[in-house]
Amino acid sequence: MFFGALEAGGTKMVLAIGNENGEIIDQKSIPTRAPAETMNEIITYFRGKEIAALGIGSFGPIDLDRASKTYGYITSTPKLDWRNYDITGTLRNALSIPVGFDTDVNASALGEATWGGLKDVPSGIYITIGTGIGVGVYMNGELLHGMLHPEAGHILLSRHPEDHFGGVCPYHSNCFEGLASGPSIEKRWNKKAYDLKDQPEVWELEAYYIAQGLVNFILTLSPHRIILGGGVMHQEQLFPWIRSQVANLLNGYVQTAQLEDMDTYIVPASLDGNQGIMGCIQLAKLEFNRQH
Amino acid sequence: MFFGALEAGGTKMVLAIGNENGEIIDQKSIPTRAPAETMNEIITYFRGKEIAALGIGSFGPIDLDRASKTYGYITSTPKLDWRNYDITGTLRNALSIPVGFDTDVNASALGEATWGGLKDVPSGIYITIGTGIGVGVYMNGELLHGMLHPEAGHILLSRHPEDHFGGVCPYHSNCFEGLASGPSIEKRWNKKAYDLKDQPEVWELEAYYIAQGLVNFILTLSPHRIILGGGVMHQEQLFPWIRSQVANLLNGYVQTAQLEDMDTYIVPASLDGNQGIMGCIQLAKLEFNRQH
Ligand SMILES: Nc1ncnc2c1ncn2[C@@H]1O[C@H](COP(=O)(O)OP(=O)(O)O)[C@@H](O)[C@H]1O
Ligand SMILES: Nc1ncnc2c1ncn2[C@@H]1O[C@H](COP(=O)(O)OP(=O)(O)O)[C@@H](O)[C@H]1O
Ligand SMILES: [Zn+2]
Ligand SMILES: [Zn+2]
Repeated sequence: MFFGALEAGGTKMVLAIGNENGEIIDQKSIPTRAPAETMNEIITYFRGKEIAALGIGSFGPIDLDRASKTYGYITSTPKLDWRNYDITGTLRNALSIPVGFDTDVNASALGEATWGGLKDVPSGIYITIGTGIGVGVYMNGELLHGMLHPEAGHILLSRHPEDHFGGVCPYHSNCFEGLASGPSIEKRWNKKAYDLKDQPEVWELEAYYIAQGLVNFILTLSPHRIILGGGVMHQEQLFPWIRSQVANLLNGYVQTAQLEDMDTYIVPASLDGNQGIMGCIQLAKLEFNRQH
Repeated sequence: MFFGALEAGGTKMVLAIGNENGEIIDQKSIPTRAPAETMNEIITYFRGKEIAALGIGSFGPIDLDRASKTYGYITSTPKLDWRNYDITGTLRNALSIPVGFDTDVNASALGEATWGGLKDVPSGIYITIGTGIGVGVYMNGELLHGMLHPEAGHILLSRHPEDHFGGVCPYHSNCFEGLASGPSIEKRWNKKAYDLKDQPEVWELEAYYIAQGLVNFILTLSPHRIILGGGVMHQEQLFPWIRSQVANLLNGYVQTAQLEDMDTYIVPASLDGNQGIMGCIQLAKLEFNRQH
């Protein structure tokens, strides 16, 4: 059985076909333009591919409340022509198949939970640190939604005493994304992030903020494992710093076997960059099972 | 059908008998001494009461992993004679009935979710601000556990620029509990908390920290409602301050119908102080159903 997968991003859309084991058979990427044009190309791609269902991992905010009239919509996004756009309904109507829907980062968490680094643990979180910071939470066998969906990239952090940079979030002066996303690194140091590789002070400060974020997630969600993905995490020297700062900040308050083995507790993404699109396959499969 | 309830605290134990509707038939409170003596009194109370199951909401940390050899134990508590104590097994063996077990604050969250202020919402959190700060999380129809159980009272906060008080947490210099629990108020201002009622600067600073904590929980867990209980919340003037500071800090980033109605989003405990013991009744009932 085949499933369609759509990773809907603000700049590009990744389209793929996969089987129930998460194996990707075909994949392509197209630029995100206005909805009508973009969706036409997406519909053309999936039509005739004999997929049983489609899964969408989308940029947000989105409406995930199945009881809501705007379930399946992209809602108050700053991308104006996508605002209040019924992405799920449009594809469901055009393709006449079940369509599963969640946030992009929840899709990544689901991909890791189904086929990757969270497969062998009962709960876990996936954090992307790239253009933005997003957190997908997998607990008790499902993705955590709540009232909206977590927006944990915007939790407020305590500023480093020597960091006077204003942050890049237009909403919060000291949120995680504002202080530690890729664009915040580039604005603070006035260079492209990958050109800063040899400046340890950059990554030490970055690890300081990431560790603080992780400590708050550990204390609030108690995940069995944390996966860190996204462009910024290509700087692999961050991992040991983050691990030791997390241990320092927790300061022995939480004692578990998992935290004693930090190298397997805080880990990089495991699916060669395919955690998101594979998660969309699983979203498709779950929606198919829900309706059959 | 009757159930037994035990709220196990570090200074006192509350024992009660209730029916499946959460109605308390009998209740008493005894001081917490060494385990043997205390447990004898508890066993004597419950014996012959014809209860079908017992529910315990306990001080912690505790082991909630059913696959663990020490499931049902109080683990690394600073109360040395209770350390690694099998409270669940002791009562199960003595009473020969199913025994449900969770943290004290999870029991309160469950009480509110079953019979109180979280009954009509799909998810929510209960926060106690008293001697310590604890958070119980109810999501997707169950209590959130994860690797251990949330210890969200210790999330790290950003210190108020004019607050130079060192905090009362021995583990963290700037955690929520260290900066905002009852004892931290009393140590910072050098007076009993209820004697500070007429000093608005005390409660303004307190609201500042509580609001920060709440914002991080809203962004991470996305609860449909937040209940604030515990001794400190007897200062009812805190509520309007907390609500407006939460709105200021979120700064419109998360837009939901719930957040537009702050007076029903952030609310006091609803069960006349019985949310914990009633939650224990429900823990008993759930464990009974699980085994029958
Ligand atoms: N090798 C790298 N080292 C450090 N930062 C990087 C690297 N590559 C990309 N980034 C940062 O990550 C951001 C892109 O994140 P990415 O996860 O690739 O995309 P997106 O978040 O848009 O899906 C860029 O803004 C850049 O700052
Ligand atoms: N009326 C009050 N106003 C402000 N603070 C109070 C009040 N009553 C109790 N407290 C604070 O709450 C703490 C006790 O919290 P409580 O929730 O009653 O108990 P516990 O957390 O031990 O279960 C005390 O340390 C005190 O600082
Ligand atoms: Zn922000
Ligand atoms: Zn602490």
